[in-house]
Amino acid sequence: MWPAIPAPGSTFYVATWNPPEGFFHRLPEPKAVFALGAGVDRFLKRDDLPDSVPLIRLTDAGMARQMAEYALAGVLRFQRNLDLYEAQQTSGLWRPLPVRSSDETRVTVLGLGRIGGVVATTLSALGYKVSGWSRAGTDIPGVVCRSGVASLDTLLAQTDVLINVLPSTEETRGLLNRERLGRLPADAGIVNAARGDQLDADALVEFLDAGRLRGALLDVFPEEPLPEESRLWNHPKVRITPHVAAVTLLGPSVRQVVRNMRRFEEGQTVEGLVDRRRGY
Amino acid sequence: MWPAIPAPGSTFYVATWNPPEGFFHRLPEPKAVFALGAGVDRFLKRDDLPDSVPLIRLTDAGMARQMAEYALAGVLRFQRNLDLYEAQQTSGLWRPLPVRSSDETRVTVLGLGRIGGVVATTLSALGYKVSGWSRAGTDIPGVVCRSGVASLDTLLAQTDVLINVLPSTEETRGLLNRERLGRLPADAGIVNAARGDQLDADALVEFLDAGRLRGALLDVFPEEPLPEESRLWNHPKVRITPHVAAVTLLGPSVRQVVRNMRRFEEGQTVEGLVDRRRGY
Ligand SMILES: NC(=O)c1ccc[n+]([C@@H]2O[C@H](COP(=O)([O-])OP(=O)(O)OC[C@H]3O[C@@H](n4cnc5c(N)ncnc54)[C@H](OP(=O)(O)O)[C@@H]3O)[C@@H](O)[C@H]2O)c1
Ligand SMILES: NC(=O)c1ccc[n+]([C@@H]2O[C@H](COP(=O)([O-])OP(=O)(O)OC[C@H]3O[C@@H](n4cnc5c(N)ncnc54)[C@H](OP(=O)(O)O)[C@@H]3O)[C@@H](O)[C@H]2O)c1
Repeated sequence: MWPAIPAPGSTFYVATWNPPEGFFHRLPEPKAVFALGAGVDRFLKRDDLPDSVPLIRLTDAGMARQMAEYALAGVLRFQRNLDLYEAQQTSGLWRPLPVRSSDETRVTVLGLGRIGGVVATTLSALGYKVSGWSRAGTDIPGVVCRSGVASLDTLLAQTDVLINVLPSTEETRGLLNRERLGRLPADAGIVNAARGDQLDADALVEFLDAGRLRGALLDVFPEEPLPEESRLWNHPKVRITPHVAAVTLLGPSVRQVVRNMRRFEEGQTVEGLVDRRRGY
Repeated sequence: MWPAIPAPGSTFYVATWNPPEGFFHRLPEPKAVFALGAGVDRFLKRDDLPDSVPLIRLTDAGMARQMAEYALAGVLRFQRNLDLYEAQQTSGLWRPLPVRSSDETRVTVLGLGRIGGVVATTLSALGYKVSGWSRAGTDIPGVVCRSGVASLDTLLAQTDVLINVLPSTEETRGLLNRERLGRLPADAGIVNAARGDQLDADALVEFLDAGRLRGALLDVFPEEPLPEESRLWNHPKVRITPHVAAVTLLGPSVRQVVRNMRRFEEGQTVEGLVDRRRGY
């Protein structure tokens, strides 16, 4: 248990989330590192963790359901006009707005992995018109699945609520830039629950102010905690949560790490082995 | 079509929602009245509609799914601390709060009819711990079903989110009074999407202010539109929507009325015939 350090030459694993800079330099090389979260972008950016050490992340471990709930809260906010009713309440205005049914609400889920797959399936089961986007392509019953950057612009143009659950990689950082945000319909809402470096927050604010986007539910930011001076904090069309869309649950996570450690020891394939070349 | 009036002695039906006072006095007696909504409390309080005229209401007709969405938005608001994060955002506070998983979240649905049944089933399918309450008692897989006033206090004491979808009747008006609201845990949230006369709004505000209740999502009020001077409008723990939890959808409603009219003509049982003695 940290801060105890294994003796040189001993065999050990590390299970950690956000260890201080240089942490791995202070240790002998571990047999493997277990990341106590789903997104390993922070691990891959470190310069104290050699590529030779297998990096194993959490897969679901109770996070997928949490993320589906968070995404759903965002979808309902926009579909059911809760954002607009909130604004109306502020000015004491009683005015029913036109209804959009779930099957008329087009939700696009970016990322169809362990988490995004459950998000897409959950929304589809509730009657939403769900499309999903991934890298290699996948097949989910009830979900229109697309892959590759070329298909993204078309998808965005047909989106009422956009949900981002992509890992942060070289390919996805900056993905939701000004140009792509501009493809979304003016009434579209955005839920970003993946990583802050994937979304251009300045462009977002500009579009919200210009009425070219409807609103955003944001859980992640380029810098966390979100700096005091950020214009997002008191933007009336932005709701902020402090990186809690899907938190690591102790029980399921420990069980998964232990199971993976055992499989690793036995030379079996482990779940969630990170492909450093792909970046996730 | 109103304002045309059927000739005396002619055979006709009325399909309507909120006709002006004395409306039915101006007509010969219709064969039946089709209420273009689910709750018929307003019809039963009229003194221009004779008891001899069959009153037929909408059953579901697309409203149940809408109500399930609304209830879900309320449940997520409290379960996922969106109300508290909203307050934190106002003061620029970044502070993750403890997580409560869906299977640790006890939802109680009052009313398990055409709408409440779908609300309960939908929430149960999403993993919530759902109890339901009705008059005669019913059985819904995955939902703990109780009935009768005697069981209500116990249910309330074990509720994290209370969802009211009861019809307004002699028995249910004033049901959620000060004493019963006092049975709820201090952290409980309330969703009222049934009728405003079932909930004591003064007691609610008092309890919210005293920290003896957590928050409320309210769609219905004793007087609608909610009067300007109501303290609910700018209460920070109250979210208001203007009676839109489940609106009448033209297509499904017309189809249901036509189907019922045909069955009525053929002497078959119609769906949604109101029992005036029960009041729903
Ligand atoms: N806010 C929070 O609280 C929170 C909590 C947990 C996770 N997260 C974020 O959610 C992310 C997803 O987690 P996960 O467990 O679902 O990851 P995962 O199982 O690795 O799935 C990643 C998905 O993204 C797709 N993808 C990756 N690169 C892509 C690209 N360049 N273009 C298109 N699609 C691409 C993958 O496509 P393929 O299927 O083709 O491989 C896969 O469908 C994490 O990396 C993390 O950043 C956030
Ligand atoms: N806000 C909105 O936009 C909106 C829209 C639509 C409807 N509503 C409201 O929702 C209500 C419910 O609609 P519905 O179609 O589901 O009605 P429903 O099919 O008649 O069901 C009513 C349910 O309430 C139960 N109930 C009635 N009196 C009771 C009592 N005294 N004690 C315990 N349970 C009692 C019934 O019990 P049993 O099963 O034992 O009969 C039944 O389960 C409507 O009456 C309306 O007021 C609101």
